[in-house]
Amino acid sequence: MDERIDPDACIFCQIVAREAPAHRVFEDEQTLVFMDIFPVTEGHTLLIPKSHCTNLLDARPHELEAVVAHSQRIAHAIRRVIAPDGIGVFQLNGAAAGQTVFHYHMHLIPRMRGEPLALHGRRLGDPERLAETARALAAALEPGAHAALRATRDTR
Amino acid sequence: MDERIDPDACIFCQIVAREAPAHRVFEDEQTLVFMDIFPVTEGHTLLIPKSHCTNLLDARPHELEAVVAHSQRIAHAIRRVIAPDGIGVFQLNGAAAGQTVFHYHMHLIPRMRGEPLALHGRRLGDPERLAETARALAAALEPGAHAALRATRDTR
Repeated sequence: MDERIDPDACIFCQIVAREAPAHRVFEDEQTLVFMDIFPVTEGHTLLIPKSHCTNLLDARPHELEAVVAHSQRIAHAIRRVIAPDGIGVFQLNGAAAGQTVFHYHMHLIPRMRGEPLALHGRRLGDPERLAETARALAAALEPGAHAALRATRDTR
Repeated sequence: MDERIDPDACIFCQIVAREAPAHRVFEDEQTLVFMDIFPVTEGHTLLIPKSHCTNLLDARPHELEAVVAHSQRIAHAIRRVIAPDGIGVFQLNGAAAGQTVFHYHMHLIPRMRGEPLALHGRRLGDPERLAETARALAAALEPGAHAALRATRDTR
């Protein structure tokens, strides 16, 4: 769990800085929510603190709290848009636990009855489909969350 | 994700009320931490809000925040006691996602390099071993967490 990386080389920091593209669902001062580009299932969403930290061990407590609070709103949006039978929340710490990007992130993975579990997709999602899902989730967020939405509809 | 159960029939509520036994690691007003009795790996720990809720969708936001804040302290204790290569955080919502007790809970599962992932153990853990791990984790909590420890050393 000591996989420190230079934030300058961190793909999630690049997404935060809009130097790399992402299908954005929501953001505010502390938190960014976007679609996993290797979705395990339709609606597979990631939540991250905007400031760089490696994993649960070095995350700032107020950022962890912001992420989990937003995860509830996103889970409700997933329910409205995807109507899954369940939602798995996964947050992996260390390569041995399956972490592949060393910037703390929480996965929300919609689950359908009988589907086998996978923690990582092996195929790039269709960009049009990801963009559409990101827009639908953003639109399905509750009013409180909407207030903090800002120019994320382009899902760049 | 609508698996509502009567709190009177909820095993986790019974553990909170000390009507059912558990190997307790930590508790405060809002949160209880104890060993999973079907451990996937050594040190498999559960965090729950004390008041009953089914899953992420109906949990009270301040309780979610308390659970995630404590999960960081417990992760550090797991690191000190178990020294795993990684830690998986899993929080399952709905039977379709693998949830088996319908009271919100977060799993912390220590992971060793090369071990296959399982979300649920199939064998009861050895009670002596669980009690010992609970005591070791409680003792390894940081000073801040210690202050809130109360009579949990009997791990009843």
